[in-house]
Parts: sequence; structure tokens; C-alpha cells
Amino acid sequence: MALDQLSVLDAHWRAANYLAAGQIYLLANPLLTEPLKPEHIKPRLLGHWGTSPGLNLVHTHLNRIVRERDLDALCVWGPGHGGPAVLANSWLDGSYSETYPDVTRDATGMARLFRQFSFPGGVPSHVAPETPGSIHEGGELGYSLAHAYGAAFDNPRLLVACVIGDGEAETGPLAASWHSNKFLDPVHDGAVLPVLHLNGYKIANPTVLARLPEDELDALLRGYGYEPLHVSGHDPRAVHRDLAEALDRAVDRITAVQQEARASGTQNTRAPGSGDRRLPWPMIVLRTPKGWTGPASVDGKPVEGTWRSHQVPLAGVRDNPEHLRQLEDWLRSYRPDELFDAEGRPTAEVLACVPEGDRRLGASPHANGGRLTRSLPVRPLEDFAVPVDKPGTALHEPTRVLGGLLAKVMADTAERRDFRVVGPDETESNRLGALFSVTGKAWQERTLPTDEHLAPDGRVMEVLSEHLCQGWLEGYLLTGRHGLFSCYEAFVHIVDSMVNQHIKWLKTSRELTWRAPIPSLNYLLTSHVWRQDHNGFSHQDPGFVDHVLNKSPEVVRVYLPPDANTLLSVAEHALLSRDYVNVIVAGKQPCFDWLPLDAARAHCARGAGVWEWAGTDDGLRDPDVVLACAGDVPTQEVLAATALLREHLPELAVRVVNVVDIARLMPREEHPHGMADFEYDALFTRDKPVIFAYHGYPWLIHRLAYRRAGHGHLHVRGYKESGSTTTPFDMVVRNDLDRYRLVMDVIDRVADLSVRAAGLRQLMADARTRHHAWIREHGTDLPEVADWSWPY
Amino acid sequence: MALDQLSVLDAHWRAANYLAAGQIYLLANPLLTEPLKPEHIKPRLLGHWGTSPGLNLVHTHLNRIVRERDLDALCVWGPGHGGPAVLANSWLDGSYSETYPDVTRDATGMARLFRQFSFPGGVPSHVAPETPGSIHEGGELGYSLAHAYGAAFDNPRLLVACVIGDGEAETGPLAASWHSNKFLDPVHDGAVLPVLHLNGYKIANPTVLARLPEDELDALLRGYGYEPLHVSGHDPRAVHRDLAEALDRAVDRITAVQQEARASGTQNTRAPGSGDRRLPWPMIVLRTPKGWTGPASVDGKPVEGTWRSHQVPLAGVRDNPEHLRQLEDWLRSYRPDELFDAEGRPTAEVLACVPEGDRRLGASPHANGGRLTRSLPVRPLEDFAVPVDKPGTALHEPTRVLGGLLAKVMADTAERRDFRVVGPDETESNRLGALFSVTGKAWQERTLPTDEHLAPDGRVMEVLSEHLCQGWLEGYLLTGRHGLFSCYEAFVHIVDSMVNQHIKWLKTSRELTWRAPIPSLNYLLTSHVWRQDHNGFSHQDPGFVDHVLNKSPEVVRVYLPPDANTLLSVAEHALLSRDYVNVIVAGKQPCFDWLPLDAARAHCARGAGVWEWAGTDDGLRDPDVVLACAGDVPTQEVLAATALLREHLPELAVRVVNVVDIARLMPREEHPHGMADFEYDALFTRDKPVIFAYHGYPWLIHRLAYRRAGHGHLHVRGYKESGSTTTPFDMVVRNDLDRYRLVMDVIDRVADLSVRAAGLRQLMADARTRHHAWIREHGTDLPEVADWSWPY
Repeated sequence: MALDQLSVLDAHWRAANYLAAGQIYLLANPLLTEPLKPEHIKPRLLGHWGTSPGLNLVHTHLNRIVRERDLDALCVWGPGHGGPAVLANSWLDGSYSETYPDVTRDATGMARLFRQFSFPGGVPSHVAPETPGSIHEGGELGYSLAHAYGAAFDNPRLLVACVIGDGEAETGPLAASWHSNKFLDPVHDGAVLPVLHLNGYKIANPTVLARLPEDELDALLRGYGYEPLHVSGHDPRAVHRDLAEALDRAVDRITAVQQEARASGTQNTRAPGSGDRRLPWPMIVLRTPKGWTGPASVDGKPVEGTWRSHQVPLAGVRDNPEHLRQLEDWLRSYRPDELFDAEGRPTAEVLACVPEGDRRLGASPHANGGRLTRSLPVRPLEDFAVPVDKPGTALHEPTRVLGGLLAKVMADTAERRDFRVVGPDETESNRLGALFSVTGKAWQERTLPTDEHLAPDGRVMEVLSEHLCQGWLEGYLLTGRHGLFSCYEAFVHIVDSMVNQHIKWLKTSRELTWRAPIPSLNYLLTSHVWRQDHNGFSHQDPGFVDHVLNKSPEVVRVYLPPDANTLLSVAEHALLSRDYVNVIVAGKQPCFDWLPLDAARAHCARGAGVWEWAGTDDGLRDPDVVLACAGDVPTQEVLAATALLREHLPELAVRVVNVVDIARLMPREEHPHGMADFEYDALFTRDKPVIFAYHGYPWLIHRLAYRRAGHGHLHVRGYKESGSTTTPFDMVVRNDLDRYRLVMDVIDRVADLSVRAAGLRQLMADARTRHHAWIREHGTDLPEVADWSWPY
Repeated sequence: MALDQLSVLDAHWRAANYLAAGQIYLLANPLLTEPLKPEHIKPRLLGHWGTSPGLNLVHTHLNRIVRERDLDALCVWGPGHGGPAVLANSWLDGSYSETYPDVTRDATGMARLFRQFSFPGGVPSHVAPETPGSIHEGGELGYSLAHAYGAAFDNPRLLVACVIGDGEAETGPLAASWHSNKFLDPVHDGAVLPVLHLNGYKIANPTVLARLPEDELDALLRGYGYEPLHVSGHDPRAVHRDLAEALDRAVDRITAVQQEARASGTQNTRAPGSGDRRLPWPMIVLRTPKGWTGPASVDGKPVEGTWRSHQVPLAGVRDNPEHLRQLEDWLRSYRPDELFDAEGRPTAEVLACVPEGDRRLGASPHANGGRLTRSLPVRPLEDFAVPVDKPGTALHEPTRVLGGLLAKVMADTAERRDFRVVGPDETESNRLGALFSVTGKAWQERTLPTDEHLAPDGRVMEVLSEHLCQGWLEGYLLTGRHGLFSCYEAFVHIVDSMVNQHIKWLKTSRELTWRAPIPSLNYLLTSHVWRQDHNGFSHQDPGFVDHVLNKSPEVVRVYLPPDANTLLSVAEHALLSRDYVNVIVAGKQPCFDWLPLDAARAHCARGAGVWEWAGTDDGLRDPDVVLACAGDVPTQEVLAATALLREHLPELAVRVVNVVDIARLMPREEHPHGMADFEYDALFTRDKPVIFAYHGYPWLIHRLAYRRAGHGHLHVRGYKESGSTTTPFDMVVRNDLDRYRLVMDVIDRVADLSVRAAGLRQLMADARTRHHAWIREHGTDLPEVADWSWPY
């Protein structure tokens, strides 16, 4: 590399370092046009210097290669608190000022850039939704590489660089993410270039990977299927040279892999004669000091190159003249007068390596993926709906019916390739196998004759890691494409913290006018709590709904469709929506069809409604009792209870209410889907007993409805952590959600019942006892329960 | 290995395979004394054959080496649905019958063993708490290896084998767990022997690791720091020979590493001349067919060695005579008449490899760790408490005060080594640095002069993986030792699913009389939602409390101590307790001391109480309003609001209630700590307005208290997902939890206030406006807020 090019790179790097440090410290005097004084310093120093110079270095060098080769590139910045660096670079490439016109690329804007950083009303210390060019929050750690792969899938011309901090590299999700290369198709997908940045320390400790013997680290990364290119040093000039060379080699290598795969007409990277093996993708291992170019030591203790540079290397600047002097020396060491002109604009030399237009990393359209989103083609639901002549007689597996719809979406996006279904090894088990008639499961490893549905270019993705499923899908959505995550209901808690972060991202993004809405994150939670016949207690947890309902109501939506056609309707809505997290809970086991398609659509649009055909209140008089239900199994039990009441207490006016959209129960002020009180009262009455059979933890319903007039009369049944390996009906009995118990609940709560009620109550209690004896002996449900159907 | 020994191993393996298959299929005719008929078959076939023969093989061989070398060993069985195998082995070694005397080691017991499996009222299909010898549920996958390491820490004579399925190996937590060897001290800790079992398939897919080129897998495992011993095959005799040899080599190697480390007097594994490098621990890579020895093919499709053997290879046995015939052939292929005598007892040959007494894997005392637990020495709290002459004037960092106590516990267990503190790189940042005066941070890698507190034998464990922290600690507790997990409040959601499983384990264990109670899992959640001054929105989530409160009330406890002395009191209680999950939420920032130690103890014992000194209701008359608080920041704001009310509306009778133990709010029937209604009413009144300032999501309080008489008058303030990088007081203002808002809430809810109230309300609104302007300009809190202290 020519010397002048090295000096161009170094100028950009110095400028970025200056701007990063300036953000952490300066409230005024951004260009150091006068000697630094305490009043120029922020009153609270909040920011992290340690990771910044490394990120600035990578950004500078990515600028160079993107510009030189006219690459379509995106970078995922993994390290936490990398905000100062990425903001500095975005300001330098002009994308920041285009996004936030107040923050001009001159001295005035620089002052604003500095002041707003980690300042009340300003911008976060992490890379965040507010950061141009970003699709990844650097707050919680562990997901950068999965996000990068998600961004690369089905983006064949895209290069996704991904800086992974050595702190983050200790997390489980990141450790698993390396294997994503087994799922990346060099023909239809783009490339991911991991840059493992070993600055040696996390907050207060060395990092595991930085302290491995070099050959052990090298073996680890080769074992993960990469060809590592090592760049180490602390002399900027040598590192610039080595990193530029390594980047050139890496991009050459990526190009070669892609060309070979794409030219050979095969859809994978098996090189002839290479022993049936993937070609390894390159990666870079970059070892540079933490807090590089910052103060070497402070108060007699080493800082640069140690964990002490993690946050604010000089902490007492406003009060300690020596610290103030050190800060000024540090800032001036970048020679700002060479980097910025008198108006504070970056010089031509500084900008010489910066790409233009959408090629700038701060302006990549992929990082504002909604700009690229095309509406998903969803065919009319009539093509998939099941006919329902009479409710509660025919059975379908709802997820299998949905599988038909998903397969058509998959087929109709065969050219566009902007739809994927992810899940941990359960697509077939969750009855979505129709997808395999139109696509395969992504797989780049060897295949054997007994394998089924594996394909290098498959758009169903299965890996036994909910973290990877979630991370890939997030990266895919954030870059503007569509998808669905089908998951065991209980184990979706594995990604609780990831969905927190995604919801926070969406909440913030919605407040940023420049961010275009992206496709929603859609969960299909199936294999749910009530049907863990062979998995038992460890697989029973319906609490994900509770978890997401704690989050921003603008973003979260929860649906519990009671049958196949309602599932179709909510799935259509979810797939076409933007900027939501949609949680759909639906069974995969045979379940009664209750509503024909038109009724299902109307019911889902309302989100909750009276099922007049099921009740006995004739819609004319006030009911004596409301039996409410949400979820497939509770709906079946409520209907069965209603049938028992019809038969044995025909004089009782029973209203049946089914709730699909659980947020309807919330007050209108607390969730956009919340019902007004008059609507709620019209459905549930203000004073009649309501027996509510709910799919999950019963107290959730109270938490949503506690402000309603009739709340004192609301009695909820649901899952209360009582479960085992047992029959479906035994599960509802154990949790007091069964039809017999519901009838008893009605009798216990409705005043002035006929004398027959006492007899019916005893009949119900006897039925529960008989059930208990039967399953202990036969291991199956009572025939009268197993064969039940809606008799009216 | 001698032929007769191989045949002994094979006999045991065949017996275990027979028993595993028998559990899945047979309701009667356990010894096949008559031809198999449909009525001998279970009506619902629920179980998983695929993993069983591999687990049986490992168990058989572990038996052999444990017996031969008289090892103190424990095995963690990772693969899901491994129940049939581990139960079979426990029945064979006699531990099952000792634990469950009904299930005798004869034909009668065998029939019971078969019938109960995956049968209502019986035992789960997974390895579970019910399984003798187990510390690990095989339900949710990913944690086996972390559990194994946790069991090995501070157990220098223990060998912990750990079978890792190749499905599980795809998970993030497992991928990170390999690096646990960087934290295992060969001097003070035991050994972990991972056995990576590659049977090639998960539910419906090949596994990633099984399909890697062999050298790539080998590099990966060496990169993880292990020396892999590869055993592959499908000829039983050859595999027996190779596996026995590999186990011998592995145990030899472990012994050598330990002897060298222990003899050299150093506390780590650096071998002189080996280039400053850990000695690699051995591990075994075992490749055998999935569903080995089961039906080779069914209905013309290959089954053995494919994913089709995952669950029940022959599914139609009761109705399909050909399947029935195949099942009988399969079962008879093990030659049960050679394995069991006429009474159904295992023959001497079968039992020849089985160890005796506590050496049996099914009887390891470590797997019933409570049997080994010693009470933790916790010194009198007087040694650590802060003096409080006057409430709300002096400040302490509560976690720093707790650090003093933890350091003494650490010091007092220096010989016993049965206490550890884990956390992701935040012990010092969480103000628990006093620990480092008595122990170091566990670390086996290279150290540099700038490192601090690293030590090979340290009992503080820091790694940037909440999964590892949790998994290690669980393994440590399950084997009877004590510990604490200090974690960022927001990021503890990373382990939501793990804590679910641990709570389920404890709930089930408590119902098993033979399982001795184990030390509780104690969380210290700090760096909480209100003090994310430099981390902002991504680090704000107080919902872990909501998550655990969905779980079994017998197990979960949640404490929100408002100051240093109350933190000491709840921590003491937590550290001495058994079989709980204790969640303690406490701040690390300077916080007012409210209660002297005696008062703190009394207050924590009650869990909730009136702070008479803070209120103005004199304890004599009914208050006009109750100001309730839970958590350190809400307590401060409530006290500040009370002070404002005292000053401006002295005629108002204000009661202050502080809640430490949040479950006190629940009905007594729903949680053992729940208050009776009369207690609740006495504290909160039945009809006065209650303004409740809560640390977390406000609706949690409603969810807990909705049944109380006064619930209609309860108004809760808390975190509502409004946050950013900002000042501490701005956070409470943004979420309407600030003192000014609380005063306004009081004025809005108390009827018949004096005219002065309207003026005060305006004053409060003005103060909020003034605050907003001030922080936007200065970036710090209003001086009157920053310098406030309790003035009475």
C-alpha cells in the first residue's frame, strides 16, 4: 500500500478518534481553538473510550475498501458502547447531517454532536436505532454475528462486515453464531466478514479469547469453519498496512468463493476434489490495544491497553488540572487543525477514503431496511380455509392449515427471496411441512441419502438454537425482509432478552421519522402448554405472553386464535403488518373448527366477541353468567361446559365470549387495541359473574382487566404450574380448567340457581373423580371426553 | 481388553437397552415369558428411543471404570428424553429400588418400571428430579456442560462425566460452556469429562457437529482447549473395545493433569516448558448410530441410524401385526432370558461391571447434594451494618455494605470451599469488590502485570455469559454448595428460561422425600432500571420479578430492600435458606440509610410495614392517604413526597408503608408469604387512597393485590418503558414516579383537601417543568433534588 494511502487512512482514523473523545468530554470548544478549560468539559462524563479506536480503525478501513471496490456493504457493530466511534464516522461521511440536519458537518454541528452524546435529551452511548447505518444495538451483547448473517441471507450482492468484541465473544449466542456459515448459501446469499476485535479486556477482566494461545484460537476459528487472517499491533502505521492487506485478501477470497459457487452452477461451496467440504470463508482477527491512542497512564497507573481504558480514562477533568492537561494533550495529539478546516469541516484528506451516496456505511439502505421492503404476497384466505358447516364437529390441526398458506407465500417469493421461516428443528413437527413442497431447509454441510428436505438454498432454517433463529430473523427483518419464527411455547423464553431488545429497538425506531417501518417479528408459538403429552412439566410455560405484554404497547400484539380459520386470519394480519412483535399462540394438535372463514375474519377483526350460537342468552336478555375463553384448549372446555349447562340447566342464560386479541382486555389508554369501557361492559356485563378460561397464567387476565367495572365478578382459570407427562384432559383437570370444573364454577357463582344445580355440581365432581381413576388405569382420557363434539 | 470383560459390558448394555425399549412399549409381559400380544402394549406410545442406546453404552462403560478404579463419579446426562436409559441403569444398579421400594429389582418391579414410564401419574420421559443420580433435567437443552463444571468446582476428588447430545451442542449456552475449562482449577476442583455423543440427528435433521469434516471438528474441540479421543462405529464389540480404551486413556490423562498440578505446588496447569499453556483436558467424541440396535427399517424406510428413530420407531404396534412382530424380534434380540433370571432379577454377569454403594452413578451423594450441604457461616450482621442515628441523612452504597458480609462468608469458607459468587464481569462494578480481599477471580489463562485479582483458585467467577454464570451456579448448588449470582437487572432475562427450569426442578424435588433440600439460588439484581445513567434504554428492564412470580410460589421469593441494612437482613435470610429462588433487587449507587439494623431486621421479618416515623398519621387515627413503596428509588421518592406534604399540607394524615417482600401483597392462599386480608387491610386500609411507588412495572402490584378490599383505591406508579441516557431524577420524572408527581397523585385522590392543595399541585407541576429545563441545559439534576435529604 502506498504511503500516501496509509496517511489518508491515518488522517481519517485520527479524525474519528478525535470526534469520539470529543463526544465523551466536550461541551464547548470543539475544535480546541482556545486552551481547554474546566467549563468546556461535560459535568457528567458518561461514555466508553476503550472500544472506540478499534471501531474507528475498522470503519476507516471499510470505507477504503468499499470505495475502492464499489462494494454494497453494511457493518454490524457488536461492541457495547461503540456509539462515539460510529457516530463520529457517520458525521464524517455526511450521513449524520443528512439524517439530522441540525448537526451540520462543521464546527456548529460538531459542537452539537459532542454535546448531545450521553446527555439528557441526546443520544445513547451505544450504537442504537438513532445511529445512522446501524441495525444492531450495542447494549446487550451476543447477537451481532447472528444479525450479520440474517442481513446477508438473500442479499447476494451484500457484504456484511461484523465487528465482534472479545467480551461479546464469551456469550453463548455469539459462540453458537459462528456456525451460521453452515447455513449461508454463497449463491443466493451475501457474504459475512467477521472481524473479531481482541482488545483484550471487558469491563474489569481480560477476555477468554484474547488470552488463548494463538494456535488454540486459530484452531478454534478454523474449527468454526473460517480462515482467520491475523492482524496485530500497536504501531498505527504497521497496523494500517496489515489491516488493509488483510481486508484486500478477505474480499478477494469472498469474491473467489462466490464466483466459484455461482459459476459452477451448483448451489453450494463444495470444491471438486476438496473432499466434499465447504470452502472456508475468511475472517479477520484484529488485536489492537484497548483505548489505543488514549492516555498511556493516569495517576501513575497504566491505562492504554488495559481494562482501565474501558470507560472514561480521565475521570476528574473538571477538578483536576493535571487530568485537564492530559486530556488536552490527548486531543491535540490527533492534530485537529490538520483534520478540520477553520469552519470545522473535515479536510479533503480526511474524506479521501470515504465512499459516496448509498455506499457510505452510514447511509446503507439495508440499515434502514423498511426502505427496501416489498409487501408480502399473501393469497386470499379462501384458498386455505377449512369449511365449517356446523361448529365443533370437524377437526383440523390449525398449524397444518397455516402451513398451506405459508407454503404459498414461500412459493410466491421464490424469485424475490424475501421470506424465511425459522425454528429449532420443529417445522415438520409443528405441522408446517407443506413448506417443504416448495423450498428446503438451508444446509451447506454434507448430506446423506436418508436426509430429507435439505437444500443449500432452502428458506426454511432449522438449528437447535432459539438464539440463532431469533438473531437471524431479526437481521433479516431489520434489512427489510419478512419472516416467521415457529417455536415451542415454553422455550421461546430462551429469547426473552433478545425480544426485549428488539421491541425497544422498534419502539425507538417508530419515533424516528427517517426510519421506515420494517416487517413485524412474527412468532408462532405452538407445541403449547396443554399438549406436552410426552414432554411433561419442563415443557410447560405459557408466560411469554406476560413477558411481552410488559413492553411498549405500541409494538406488542398477542393473538390466541381458537381454531384453524382464525389462525389464518391473524397470521395474514401479522405477515402484512409493520413494526410490531406479533405473538400468535396456536395448537398443532387436532382442534375443532368453530368458525367459517367469514365469521373468523370478522371475529379476529373485532378481537373479541360474543359467540351467540354457543350461548343461551339469545342476545335478548342479560345473561346470568359469561363464560369467556382465550386459546384453543380453553375454548374447547368452555364450549363443552356450555353444552353441559344447556343440557342440565337449560333455564340458565349463558353468554360465551371468545377473545383472540388479548390486548383488547386492556384499557384503551394503555394499549391501542384496548376496548373502551362501554365495549367491555357490553361484552362482559358490569355485574354478572364472568368465568374466564385462559390459555396461560390466570392472573394475566386480572392484570389486564383490573380497572373494569365488572372486575370484582371476574374469575379466571388457567395454567398454574401443575403439570406432568399425562393426557390432554388430565392437564386441564390438574389446572382446574376442565369443563366439569367450569360448570362447578358457574354453579358456585350464580345466585338463585334451581335445586337441580346442586345435583349437577355433584355430577361434575363425580366425573372428575371418574376421570382420575380411568387415566390411572388406562393411561388415556375418558371416552366421553376423548370423543366429545359440540352437540348443538 | 479381555474378551470376557467385553462380554460383561455387552451383557449390561443389552440389559439396559432391553429395559429402555420395554419402558417405551410394555404394559405387561415384561420378561416376554409369553408371545407378545397387542394388550401387552401401552395404549399411548410416548418416549424416545433414539438417544437411549448411546446413553446406555456410556453408562455401562462408566460403571466399568468407576468400579475398576473406585472413582467418585457423577454423570450429567444432557440428551433430551434420555429417561428410559438412565432409569434402566438405575434399576440395574439397584439405586432405583432403594429410592422407590415399590419398584423392586425383579419381574414385579420391572413391570412397574415399564408401566410408570411416560404414563399418567408415572415418571417423565426426560431425566428429571425423579431420576436417581441426576442433577440435570434433559428437557430444555443447552446446560449440561455448565452444570457439569458447576458440580466439579471445589470437588477435587470428583469426576463429572457429561454426555452432550449433538442436538444440544448447537445451542448457544452449550457452545460457550466448552470454555469453562479456563475456569477450572486442577488443584481445588474436580475433573469434567465431556462425552460428545454424535448420533447424527436431532428431531428431523442432521446435526451440525456430526456433519463437520472430522478434522474441522477436531480443530474446533482443540480450539476449545480439549484433547479429543474419537470413538466411532456400529459394531458393538469394536465400539466396546474402543470406548473402554478411550475411557482408560481419558481417566489416565485426568489423573496425570491433576497429579502434576497438585504436586507442583502451583495452582494451575501450566506445565514448565509447555509455552505458558494450560494442559488440555481429555474429552471423548463418540459416534454411534441413532436408535442403535433398534429396528433397521420400518415400513420399508430406514430407521436405525436416522432421524426416524428419534421417538418411537414402531408406532402402530397395537394395530399392526407386522409392527408387533418386529417389536418382539427387536426385544428378543437382546436375549432377555440370558440377562434376567426367572424372577426377573439381573444376572451376575449383567451386574459384574456395576459399582457398589455410593459409587453407583444412581446413588452418588453429589446428585442429591442436599445430603452434603453444610450450613453457611454468616457472621452477625452487627459486624457489617451501618449506623443510622437519623433516617435519610447518611448515604451508603447498599451492595458495597453487602460486599463486606460476602467477603466474610468467603473468608470463613476458605477451607471448606463451598461458597462462590458468579457474575458477568461486574463484581467490582457492583461494589462487591471487598470479596477480592479474600479470594480472586477464577482464571487459568495467562496473566499480565496489569491484571487484578485473577487467581487459579479464585471463588469469584466472572465471564461475560449470564448463561455460564447461571449454569455453573446451578451445578454448584445442586451438588450441595452455596452461592450468589450478581447480575445487571435487565440482562438477567438472558437466563429466564434457565431459571424456569431450575424452579421446576426445585418444585418437583420438594415433593420427593428422598431429595434433601439444597441451598437456594440467590440473585442480587443490581445496576437496576433507575440508574442506567450511561447505559440508557437498552439496560432498563425490571421484569424478571414478574417472570419468577409466575412460577411455583413454594419456590420463589422476591425482596426489594430499600437500604443497606435491610439488604443485609434479606441477604442473610437468602444465604441460609434452602430450595428457594431468592431474587433480591438492590441498588449499587449511594442510597439513604433509613433503618438501623434492629429495625431493619424487624421490618424484613414482617416483609412489609408502616414506617411511623415517616408518616403523619400518628398511628392514632386512620390516615387520609397511604403512600406505599417498594424498592430503593421509589422509597426515596415517597419519603421526599411525604416531606413535601408535611411541609405544605400538615393537616393531611399520611401513612408510609414500605414493602420489602413483594409476595406479602399476594393472598395467603396463593403464596406462603401472602398476607391475610385483615393484615393487608390494617396496613393499607380498606377505603383510603393508596399511592404505591413500585420499583418495576406498575401492573405487577395490581396483579398481586387485585383481590384486596381496597384494590379499587390503589394507584401504582412504576417503570413504564420510558427511558434513555439521562439523569437519575429525570428517569423517575419520565415514568411519573417522582416526588412531585406523587404529591400531585395524592392531591388528585384525596377528597376534601384544603384550598392550599390546589396551590401545592401547581407548585409541583412547576417543579417538574423547572427540572425539565434545567437538565436540558446542565445535564445534571436540579440542585434541590440532588442535595435532598430527609429533613425530619
